Amino acid sequence: MAGDVPIRSSLGWSSADRVVVHGYDLPGQLLGHVGLGEMGFLSLAGRLPEPDEAAVFEACLVTLVEHGATPSSLATRLTAHGAPESLQGAVAAGLLGLGDRFVGSIEGAAQLTQEAWDDAPDADATTLAARVVDDFGRERRPIPGFGHPVHRPVDPRTVRLFEIAEEHGRAGRFVELMRSIADELASRRGTPVPLNATGAIGALVGELDLPWQAGRGIGVMARTVGLVGHVLEEAAAPIAGEIWHRVDEEIRAGASDAREGDR
Amino acid sequence: MAGDVPIRSSLGWSSADRVVVHGYDLPGQLLGHVGLGEMGFLSLAGRLPEPDEAAVFEACLVTLVEHGATPSSLATRLTAHGAPESLQGAVAAGLLGLGDRFVGSIEGAAQLTQEAWDDAPDADATTLAARVVDDFGRERRPIPGFGHPVHRPVDPRTVRLFEIAEEHGRAGRFVELMRSIADELASRRGTPVPLNATGAIGALVGELDLPWQAGRGIGVMARTVGLVGHVLEEAAAPIAGEIWHRVDEEIRAGASDAREGDR
Amino acid sequence: MAGDVPIRSSLGWSSADRVVVHGYDLPGQLLGHVGLGEMGFLSLAGRLPEPDEAAVFEACLVTLVEHGATPSSLATRLTAHGAPESLQGAVAAGLLGLGDRFVGSIEGAAQLTQEAWDDAPDADATTLAARVVDDFGRERRPIPGFGHPVHRPVDPRTVRLFEIAEEHGRAGRFVELMRSIADELASRRGTPVPLNATGAIGALVGELDLPWQAGRGIGVMARTVGLVGHVLEEAAAPIAGEIWHRVDEEIRAGASDAREGDR
Amino acid sequence: MAGDVPIRSSLGWSSADRVVVHGYDLPGQLLGHVGLGEMGFLSLAGRLPEPDEAAVFEACLVTLVEHGATPSSLATRLTAHGAPESLQGAVAAGLLGLGDRFVGSIEGAAQLTQEAWDDAPDADATTLAARVVDDFGRERRPIPGFGHPVHRPVDPRTVRLFEIAEEHGRAGRFVELMRSIADELASRRGTPVPLNATGAIGALVGELDLPWQAGRGIGVMARTVGLVGHVLEEAAAPIAGEIWHRVDEEIRAGASDAREGDR
Repeated sequence: MAGDVPIRSSLGWSSADRVVVHGYDLPGQLLGHVGLGEMGFLSLAGRLPEPDEAAVFEACLVTLVEHGATPSSLATRLTAHGAPESLQGAVAAGLLGLGDRFVGSIEGAAQLTQEAWDDAPDADATTLAARVVDDFGRERRPIPGFGHPVHRPVDPRTVRLFEIAEEHGRAGRFVELMRSIADELASRRGTPVPLNATGAIGALVGELDLPWQAGRGIGVMARTVGLVGHVLEEAAAPIAGEIWHRVDEEIRAGASDAREGDR
Repeated sequence: MAGDVPIRSSLGWSSADRVVVHGYDLPGQLLGHVGLGEMGFLSLAGRLPEPDEAAVFEACLVTLVEHGATPSSLATRLTAHGAPESLQGAVAAGLLGLGDRFVGSIEGAAQLTQEAWDDAPDADATTLAARVVDDFGRERRPIPGFGHPVHRPVDPRTVRLFEIAEEHGRAGRFVELMRSIADELASRRGTPVPLNATGAIGALVGELDLPWQAGRGIGVMARTVGLVGHVLEEAAAPIAGEIWHRVDEEIRAGASDAREGDR
Repeated sequence: MAGDVPIRSSLGWSSADRVVVHGYDLPGQLLGHVGLGEMGFLSLAGRLPEPDEAAVFEACLVTLVEHGATPSSLATRLTAHGAPESLQGAVAAGLLGLGDRFVGSIEGAAQLTQEAWDDAPDADATTLAARVVDDFGRERRPIPGFGHPVHRPVDPRTVRLFEIAEEHGRAGRFVELMRSIADELASRRGTPVPLNATGAIGALVGELDLPWQAGRGIGVMARTVGLVGHVLEEAAAPIAGEIWHRVDEEIRAGASDAREGDR
Repeated sequence: MAGDVPIRSSLGWSSADRVVVHGYDLPGQLLGHVGLGEMGFLSLAGRLPEPDEAAVFEACLVTLVEHGATPSSLATRLTAHGAPESLQGAVAAGLLGLGDRFVGSIEGAAQLTQEAWDDAPDADATTLAARVVDDFGRERRPIPGFGHPVHRPVDPRTVRLFEIAEEHGRAGRFVELMRSIADELASRRGTPVPLNATGAIGALVGELDLPWQAGRGIGVMARTVGLVGHVLEEAAAPIAGEIWHRVDEEIRAGASDAREGDR
């Protein structure tokens, strides 16, 4: 019956002279000591990151902030065109497209590496990589985190992300497994297959001891920062109206070719 | 006519071996060098912050991440209850409530301080403060950024934010004006009126040379980070169902008292 | 203090064997008796419409369902492209663009006609029309509901909507005022200015005794129905990917012309 | 390469004197002839419904408009509290919760009945019902569309929906299968298990020759109409603030009991 279950939350509370967030005193322990990225880690992990973890985590976030024209950023700009009074609405519209197709591949890469090691903690990465490639091949599914339409044969973001992970002692077995999968794919196909940035970040989710489901949260945090920039650029140098008019004109032209469509 | 206007954006572009964001080389100049908060400044200002600016800006963001139970975080949790498959949808629902009533007061405080100094650049802060209090009083509007239901007589976040601003040479005339308004209000009412965190951040928006409209963007970036945490806590320790059932039960009880409402 | 205020709602309640909506017995008085459009009127007015009101109200809704390519429908399709798993998210993204620029003009037209008659209930429509045109001209604001890029000199939807209103005895003083404004504009400019469908609907909001704020609600109800159709067509005959790739390619081309943008 | 694929849509187009929606002339063939519910059928099926289909479809929609306090309607009201300027944002927030847990059961019921008949078109409903109950039991999954916390032993909406379907010649094998499943469950458990309204609507989706995926679309259309009503009631008789304050107070009280949570 309603009322019997107490409503509790450990995320935050305050009193007249205190504000506590995740158990930390906000003014005394957080303000001036940590930045937005570290707060993101706190949101996902329930604890602040060590400095090495923070460095790797911030690099993951920064990678995802801004990708130029994407379905998500275009949805934000079109929404801002119609409702310029609501920045939050335009950003929300862009976030709603961060679903299975895009940010989902971070989760997918994180999940596959975490489950592979969970299933066979004592395996070596090469054997595991072959098994992963076999498994996905059998189900005719693409391996999340591999391939890129533009960044070929190498995604420069992956190179840099793994370099940062190494500098900070966080390039362990999840990174090793993704690299082994890339080798395995290259040798089977006879051509390099780029390990893209979402695959790299998926591996680093494991290195940071975060559950694979955190992948979507990382994407949402980072892209929000970028989408705010799109709302501002749309106000200053609009493109949404032009995109709309071109699409509309092309659809009209196609429709007038096909007026037999009338009933 | 559609097609005559070129579609341009300076936020980002990439080629096979390069990724450029706001004119910076992402792997070479941003990854490993800046964090999510600095990317937020880049989104709003089109340039990276100086270290002193970054310190003040990060403090503003961190302040806004997590406020415990708010209409916005409850909307996120209720949405996650109904659509647990979509983290992005639950976060978007929470962002949609960051409107005129809440995040609007950051914008309001930023706007009032910026317009006051624009109108009278040579005035002194005390005179200006009296004028602001007169103007709002005449229109019977509350001055944005003042008053708090819990943090009385002093909002501990404001104290710390202005301390950080002073350490970093960013406690200039916008901070001075908000402090003068607080003094003016206290003397007129005979009791201290807290300058709350949104008012403090509104002043710091000016100190960071950001337009007042950036206030809502800062709120959206920061709260996204906190809302992700609410989705995760809702999955682990749910409260949305209990909130729903209690409200539903109370409405049913009230309705059964008033069945004459039937037609 | 929290808890002192009872939580009440008169929209709906249920018990083991009853479901009551706005005071009507859902199975007995609504199912099989009314349609979705009449439920829309019930949501806005708190009562079911008379048959004549229903006819006019349904015509307003049907007019707004589908406008082909709009910023709103494109945002829906781009969102569905990224998150095909969430129909509700794609529709929500499209709704978020129904803001001041588009659906706002229904509200604007409804507001101007309602306020004009409220201010001068005994005026004649011609005098009032001249006053409205003067007032908007003085503030250099466009009169909401007039002008159309495609439907010139006459919007065929307006003709039909007013015809339906006449058939049902609902073409009263709000319709008369909008027609008088159209005449006034035509005589001042020496060329006809189309009274568009949002202007016609704005007038009919007044004829239906609905407050002008209902205009946005009508738009949101109707466009949801159309946006669901866009999600389904996007799944069957996708265009979002192509729109994205064209925009992306054009931005890349522009950026490569201007690489001095690098820092 | 971008630009090679033509952008086409058959949902709507217009020229100076025509507006065509799904191939119908909007002013001539739709306005004054059909209502919002029939437009919903057109959005889902690409054709207007026959009168018998329209009657059944409207009943499904009307059933779903308003359920009183739900996670979705509460999210709408909390969002309206924070951003009263954006009706569309508050409605969008509510729609985002129409996910797997709630509207998903319409889809689930539609899918199970459609797949059952597709797999065994010549079976009799009793045999098929036993097979469905076995299959779900083996996977320990609840059968979508059965059970209700309040409407026991019979959901009065289901009774009326099937009555309307019978009057209009649309109570065929999908309805028969759901009834057989209800009988099978009752006989196995020794107690009646209510076939709820989402289960009834799921069966009617099949009777209307709509694909099971249409279930979520029906829910989204109908609930939008109801959510607009919640925004208006929240403005006139607010409850969101009280809900928020009660939750906040309870969390504060719990937190102050557990301050050892501090770090």
